[in-house]
Amino acid sequence: MATAGLGGPVALIGVGLIGGSLGLALRDAGVAVVRGFDPADGALKGALERGAITDAAPDIAVAAEGAEMVVVCAPVGDISAVVSEVLAVTDAGTVVTDVGSAKSEVLDALTPVERERFCGGHPVAGGELSGVANARDDLFVGATWFLTPTAETRPDLLERVHGMVASVGAVPVAVDVQVHDHLMALVSHLPHVMASGLMRQAAVTAPQGREALGSAGPSFRDLTRVAGSSPTLWADILLSNRAAVLDATRNHRAELAEVEAALERGDRAWLEGFFQSAAEGRERLMRADDAVVGEVVRITVEVPNRPGVLSEVATVLGHAHINIEDLHLSPARADEPSGILELDVAGDDAARRAAALIADQGFRVTEGA
Amino acid sequence: MATAGLGGPVALIGVGLIGGSLGLALRDAGVAVVRGFDPADGALKGALERGAITDAAPDIAVAAEGAEMVVVCAPVGDISAVVSEVLAVTDAGTVVTDVGSAKSEVLDALTPVERERFCGGHPVAGGELSGVANARDDLFVGATWFLTPTAETRPDLLERVHGMVASVGAVPVAVDVQVHDHLMALVSHLPHVMASGLMRQAAVTAPQGREALGSAGPSFRDLTRVAGSSPTLWADILLSNRAAVLDATRNHRAELAEVEAALERGDRAWLEGFFQSAAEGRERLMRADDAVVGEVVRITVEVPNRPGVLSEVATVLGHAHINIEDLHLSPARADEPSGILELDVAGDDAARRAAALIADQGFRVTEGA
Repeated sequence: MATAGLGGPVALIGVGLIGGSLGLALRDAGVAVVRGFDPADGALKGALERGAITDAAPDIAVAAEGAEMVVVCAPVGDISAVVSEVLAVTDAGTVVTDVGSAKSEVLDALTPVERERFCGGHPVAGGELSGVANARDDLFVGATWFLTPTAETRPDLLERVHGMVASVGAVPVAVDVQVHDHLMALVSHLPHVMASGLMRQAAVTAPQGREALGSAGPSFRDLTRVAGSSPTLWADILLSNRAAVLDATRNHRAELAEVEAALERGDRAWLEGFFQSAAEGRERLMRADDAVVGEVVRITVEVPNRPGVLSEVATVLGHAHINIEDLHLSPARADEPSGILELDVAGDDAARRAAALIADQGFRVTEGA
Repeated sequence: MATAGLGGPVALIGVGLIGGSLGLALRDAGVAVVRGFDPADGALKGALERGAITDAAPDIAVAAEGAEMVVVCAPVGDISAVVSEVLAVTDAGTVVTDVGSAKSEVLDALTPVERERFCGGHPVAGGELSGVANARDDLFVGATWFLTPTAETRPDLLERVHGMVASVGAVPVAVDVQVHDHLMALVSHLPHVMASGLMRQAAVTAPQGREALGSAGPSFRDLTRVAGSSPTLWADILLSNRAAVLDATRNHRAELAEVEAALERGDRAWLEGFFQSAAEGRERLMRADDAVVGEVVRITVEVPNRPGVLSEVATVLGHAHINIEDLHLSPARADEPSGILELDVAGDDAARRAAALIADQGFRVTEGA
């Protein structure tokens, strides 16, 4: 793994499974000072013992003071308040990010000025067991870590967060905040609702005493694996992504209603088509896993020196499924009319597609096209 | 594994994954003659080469002639017609069973007289790859194999099917046909519909070009694993269990609608309760896997000599999740007023519960109570 490139302290607000694992990984990546704050009983002691943090702080202000980066790893329902608090007690030298699985709510609560130093984050990683005791320094290796920078996010601070994510072995993927929340509603939040709904239905079904749960086969077990997840966490996740989740569940209900209509009219052809298109989707999902990755290609772009440029470029590539291994913007001085953006992308094909997309945005690609 | 106790030939109509695996397992259990018929190109040749059958028959009549048992392993949509054909070309010495995953449709097509020699079956086993090439002699080991005997099923023939199932390492579980179809709709057919519906939804979703499938995490993968199943097979399975599947999907839609209502009113407590009860269900499912099994206890019961007695007793125990390791009814002569039923059940606790349930049915338990 790369070094984090963070000279100053990093603060973790919340040192459970995610915060604790991040602390371990950052220490591995060479971050000298990782401060932690966590109001939960024994959490800080555990994090110190595991080596996930170097310093235990008595409150958020002490943890965040002078930090280069503060990562808010609080429970989903608390993230918005904690982010605001951290922004209030830090200054221009500190970037704030978080690890919540829904992002609009947190952003909506911030003013444009506050957004300059905030970049939402969401590592797609976790485990069935929570708490720092289950933290692992390799939890993020190979995992997608979504970032939702906005037009206001300061480019140097986005670069810092991007570098931190890469340093723990994750793949930073910048996406629009609405795109993120919409996709997570569909591929994560709805599946949790479906799994739990099915499990509840099965748990109360026992015709003539024969329990549905006692008759469950492998498909049922696969489908309900996530039904054991933390009730508090998941209630908060759904509420934090309410609009997008409602959209996804409504669409799913509509799909089920179509199946019912086909069954009612005995429409074998429609049902076959239904399962066929699902099988094709599954095929595509499996093929995506085998994607070939090539040598890293550097792309150099001349960009105007205005806020939002880096967010824009990173997001366009994220939407196109092109991963940015590394990025660097220079010079970042306010009195220059333009800067040079260097992007590392894996594989010739991805580099060509990236260069074309960047040119489409109206920027001049000077190398790697 | 026990020997099958079958002296005469067994016929398999259909020698794909299930029929082929059953042939291999029956050969292992000591069945000397396993005849096969399958209209699919090359299927019989493959089955002979794998040793899944000893004789390839040119049609159903030749395969079934003089067989002690005919197992219909045809595609779900064909089972009903094949069962009727097999019953028509066989006589009192032959019992007919099948392996379809929905049972009412097949039974409904039979006359009471035809039902005397038919006992529906459903091994809860399979694999992602079909065909005799993927057959395995241990496919059924430890698997639940549902049987749906009726009041008309001849006791000696039920005993024969029960013994065959146990001889291939499966756990025979007798249940009422409606109970079976209702449970399978919930724990198997609905999950397949849900998985495929979710997969279809994800496959067509790509806001701003970012594909939902490219953003899928482990929960999505778990939930959609079965979305790759055979479209033809699954269209037929849904149609063969139409009423129960409609019931299950409607209930699931109602459950989703409740989640939506809670989200709309921001009801955190309700959502927590929703996930909590699902987590409890998951816990129960996991605990069931750890069930303790004890020494086999023999229960002896005096039963009236009338049809349906054995079906009744076996089904009552199946509904109560008490597995019958072995069963034997004697004497089965028509001129005796009563017979002796011997049942082997694993564990003292199960034996006590079994004896109580049998006594509740009005039969006299003479031993093992």
